[in-house]
Amino acid sequence: MGRRRWAVAEGYIPEGSNGPAPTMTSHESVCILNTGSQDAQVEITVYFSDRDPAGPYRLTVPARRTRHVRFNDLKDPEPVPLGTEYASTIVSDVPVVVQHTRLDSRQAENALLSTIAYAED
Amino acid sequence: MGRRRWAVAEGYIPEGSNGPAPTMTSHESVCILNTGSQDAQVEITVYFSDRDPAGPYRLTVPARRTRHVRFNDLKDPEPVPLGTEYASTIVSDVPVVVQHTRLDSRQAENALLSTIAYAED
Amino acid sequence: MGRRRWAVAEGYIPEGSNGPAPTMTSHESVCILNTGSQDAQVEITVYFSDRDPAGPYRLTVPARRTRHVRFNDLKDPEPVPLGTEYASTIVSDVPVVVQHTRLDSRQAENALLSTIAYAED
Amino acid sequence: MGRRRWAVAEGYIPEGSNGPAPTMTSHESVCILNTGSQDAQVEITVYFSDRDPAGPYRLTVPARRTRHVRFNDLKDPEPVPLGTEYASTIVSDVPVVVQHTRLDSRQAENALLSTIAYAED
Repeated sequence: MGRRRWAVAEGYIPEGSNGPAPTMTSHESVCILNTGSQDAQVEITVYFSDRDPAGPYRLTVPARRTRHVRFNDLKDPEPVPLGTEYASTIVSDVPVVVQHTRLDSRQAENALLSTIAYAED
Repeated sequence: MGRRRWAVAEGYIPEGSNGPAPTMTSHESVCILNTGSQDAQVEITVYFSDRDPAGPYRLTVPARRTRHVRFNDLKDPEPVPLGTEYASTIVSDVPVVVQHTRLDSRQAENALLSTIAYAED
Repeated sequence: MGRRRWAVAEGYIPEGSNGPAPTMTSHESVCILNTGSQDAQVEITVYFSDRDPAGPYRLTVPARRTRHVRFNDLKDPEPVPLGTEYASTIVSDVPVVVQHTRLDSRQAENALLSTIAYAED
Repeated sequence: MGRRRWAVAEGYIPEGSNGPAPTMTSHESVCILNTGSQDAQVEITVYFSDRDPAGPYRLTVPARRTRHVRFNDLKDPEPVPLGTEYASTIVSDVPVVVQHTRLDSRQAENALLSTIAYAED
């Protein structure tokens, strides 16, 4: 179930957090669901406003599993900077489903946003 | 109106709540709308990062009715654990429309997220 | 631009509000955009979990205009109850674009959710 | 990757903000991602409930870049008023991906909403 090519035009990891880490740390995630019987090899590319894209970041989503990947945790080939506007593409070798979520805890009470990503074949 | 196969890649029931139960209890829901003249037999499957999927959870959405199902309330064949990343598929025998919502009241003021689910034929 | 048939599976007007009315009153809206050169005649139907649907609620979105309709303000043929789970369909005689938004101010600080609605021809 | 024609039916820049500018200023953005090898020439048109549309606002999203455009910052041909319901279309000469986000900091703690925009060819 799903598609192979996804894009998320919004991206911003807030600087600063309130509450216990890691659950309340300000973060952005891409949630990837692989309902199929074959592991998904996924490449994430991160786009910026003023420099060339970073990546690809490579990861595996095993068959019949989900992975919720924090952009904060992407380190190889380079970390994603905080407080910086970015966007991303998520390309898989098998169909997957992708959703994008931010938790913003810069202020004492957290705020959330989420949306289905853009998909195409 | 709608589609038969839906997926939600995000899933997380926050542990801990502030405010009166059940309305302000931290929860996640799938909202299912059946605009047709025939009852919808729906199966929800819950996917995890580190174990086999749970389910199917079976429920009926009567003709021309909506049901907002809290993952917190799914008990058979097993409860959905709190504080755990998951994802879900929602498969119906007739077309329905599915939306995914979280209310997070871990902190004193609640936060909300919602998105249309991913659909395919 | 857009489609003629839309559905929103989520629906819930929180009971209780904090902050000045009407801007901070807890509410749900459907935002309808008509980019065309012909007025859109729109019918909203509201679905419930335990009774027959309400409506249709009829309204016009003039050519090249947007209307953000609060479910709180729908009165004819009947008001939409607070604190009750519902869903809705939005059917137009010309293509429009529909988005669904909730402002929840039950607690001192408000929370927001929004999503594109489900569309079909 | 993406489409050429996008629409966002929701639009509202809250009046008033809490927290340091510009990051915590109440605002709405369209996030535009151009993954292609050619610069995107983009025109934004803003629709209202009671007057003719404003725009087009013209901007460029360079190849392999993202731009997160605040409606608050659109000045030419005219600013977008605060506290006013609006909607928008985003039309590009090459495929792009568009997402819509609001940060509302009228109250002490901020609230967020975001959704993929509506796309068509």
